[in-house]
Amino acid sequence: MIKPDWIAVDWGTTNLRAWAMLEDGTVGSRAESALGMVHVEPGRFEATLESMIGGWLTDDRSTQVVACGMVGADRGWVHAPYREAPCTPIAPGGFALAPVRDRRMNVVVVPGLMTVTPSPDVMRGEETQIAGLFSGSPEFHGIACLPGTHTKWVSVRSGQIAEFQTFMTGELFDILGSKSILRHSVDPRGWDGDAFSEAILLGMSDPGMIAARLFSLRSESLICGLEPAVANARLSGILIGAELASTRPLWQERDLIVVGSGKACSAYGSALRVLGKEFTEIDSERAVTAGLGHARRVFGQMACPDG
Amino acid sequence: MIKPDWIAVDWGTTNLRAWAMLEDGTVGSRAESALGMVHVEPGRFEATLESMIGGWLTDDRSTQVVACGMVGADRGWVHAPYREAPCTPIAPGGFALAPVRDRRMNVVVVPGLMTVTPSPDVMRGEETQIAGLFSGSPEFHGIACLPGTHTKWVSVRSGQIAEFQTFMTGELFDILGSKSILRHSVDPRGWDGDAFSEAILLGMSDPGMIAARLFSLRSESLICGLEPAVANARLSGILIGAELASTRPLWQERDLIVVGSGKACSAYGSALRVLGKEFTEIDSERAVTAGLGHARRVFGQMACPDG
Repeated sequence: MIKPDWIAVDWGTTNLRAWAMLEDGTVGSRAESALGMVHVEPGRFEATLESMIGGWLTDDRSTQVVACGMVGADRGWVHAPYREAPCTPIAPGGFALAPVRDRRMNVVVVPGLMTVTPSPDVMRGEETQIAGLFSGSPEFHGIACLPGTHTKWVSVRSGQIAEFQTFMTGELFDILGSKSILRHSVDPRGWDGDAFSEAILLGMSDPGMIAARLFSLRSESLICGLEPAVANARLSGILIGAELASTRPLWQERDLIVVGSGKACSAYGSALRVLGKEFTEIDSERAVTAGLGHARRVFGQMACPDG
Repeated sequence: MIKPDWIAVDWGTTNLRAWAMLEDGTVGSRAESALGMVHVEPGRFEATLESMIGGWLTDDRSTQVVACGMVGADRGWVHAPYREAPCTPIAPGGFALAPVRDRRMNVVVVPGLMTVTPSPDVMRGEETQIAGLFSGSPEFHGIACLPGTHTKWVSVRSGQIAEFQTFMTGELFDILGSKSILRHSVDPRGWDGDAFSEAILLGMSDPGMIAARLFSLRSESLICGLEPAVANARLSGILIGAELASTRPLWQERDLIVVGSGKACSAYGSALRVLGKEFTEIDSERAVTAGLGHARRVFGQMACPDG
C-alpha cells in the first residue's frame, strides 16, 4: 500500500482528482471521481475525500493534503477568499485550513484569484496550474490558455499573473449539444476533423453570426441529413472560432502555452494548428501537481519561517 | 356559445394557440395552452386540439381548422413538406390534411419553408405571419424581423420571401439563464432597461467576446454582487447585440417591420430604438390570423377552382 509523502487534490465543480505524491516529487498513485462540488452535500466534504484517499492515510502521522479548485469557494468545504491579480499565482497569504475530524490528515486549501480589469473575472484551480507552469518555465512571458468548461486566457510575466479572461465556450458547447434543439442534430461523442477545421475559419469571420450558424446545424440536419458527428465538430468549431477571433490580439504575437488534457485541449490545439499558431503544451496533471507542490512549499515556509 | 366560421390554429414547439374566427374576419374568441408539439404524444394531436376547441365545434357541419407551425413537421400531426424559398409565403401546393376522426372538423396544415442560401434554413409558422403582413402591406419591400426562441430575419419583395435566416438567440437566452452556471446569477423574471441598452452596444462591438461577456456576469455577481435583474437584462442585451451587429447589413438601409408580441418582441424593439433604427410593429396574433385567413382562401380556391 502506498503511503505518500503528501497528497495533491484538484477539487473542481464536476470532478475530484487526487494524487499520492512521493518524496521524490513523482506521482505514486492517482484517483479520480465525478464527485465534484456540485455533487457533494454540505457537511460531506471530509467523508467524500476520505472515501477516495483513505487508503493512502496512515495512523502514524497526519498526512498533508493540499487542495485547489472550487473546494475553496464560498459554498465549498472552507472559504479561501479570492486574491486579486496582478499577483503571483501562489503567495503566503490566503491559504485556508479545512475543518477535519480525521487526525490522519490535514487539509490546506489554495485561494483562487479575481481581477477587475479588463472585466470582472475569477478563477479557482487555474492559478495552481500556472504556478506549476512557472515551476518548469520560471521565465515564461506570454499567454497561457487553459481549455475547459470555462476556458481561461492568462497573461503572465515575471512570475506573475497580470490579467486573465474566462470564456464559457466549453459550457456553451455542452449545453447546446445536450439541452438545446441542437441535441436532435449532434452526436456529442462524434467528431470530424475536417469539419472542425472549416468551422474554426467560419467561426472566426463575423462572430456575431454565431446564433445563426448554430441554428443552421439544425436546418442542415433537417434538410440535408447533416451527419451528427460532423454537426458536433462544427458546433465546437463555430464556438471556439469566435473565441479565437476575439483573443487573437492576446496570442497572435506572443509565446503561447496551452495547459490541459482531454478533448477540450485537443480541440484548441487543432484550432491553433489550423491558424498556423505555434504553441507549447503542458499536461494539466503535471501542471496541477507541480503547482500544488509549490503551494505546499510556500505554505510550509509560512508555517515554519526558519525551515 | 361561439360557433365560428372557421378556426385559426398556430401550433408551435412550445405553445398551442387557437382563434374562433367570425364571418366578418374578426376574432370571436381565443384559447392558448402550453401544449406545444414537444408536449403532445404521437397519436394525441386530435384529442389535444379537441380539448381546446371542442366547444367551438357544432354537429351541424364540419368546421374548417387552418393550422400552421410545427404541427406540419416530420414528427408533427401530419407531414407538410417544406416549400423552397424564394417563393410566396402561401401557395396552392403543399397543404396537408390531418387525419381526423371527429366529423365536426377538418384540419388543413400550411407547409413551412426552407432555403439553401445564404445557408440552409427552415421556418414553420413564420411564413404564415409574413402572409399576414402582406395582407395589410401588399407592397412591402424590405426586411421583417420575427423575434422569438428562434428569431427570423426575412427579406421580402414583390409579395415573395426572397431569403431568410434564423438566429437561436432566444433559446440561448433561455438555456443560459436556466441551465448554465449563469442561473445562479440571473433572475429570468427581472429586467433593467438601462443595463439592457448598455449591453446592446457592448454586444455589438466585437461579438466574438460573447462567451467571455457571459462568464463576466457570473464573475461580477460573485465579486461585486451584480443584481440578478440587471444580469438578466445584460444577458439578453449581449446576445441580441451580437445578432444586431451581424444583421445590420440587412436592416440598416431598408424598411423594417417587427412582427411579434411579448417580451422577446419588446426587447428587439428597445434594442432597435437604442440604435436609432425606425421600424413598424405588427402584432403576431394579427399577423398569424390574417395569414391563416389567406391560407384558407388559397386552399379554398384550389379545392373549388370555380369558386
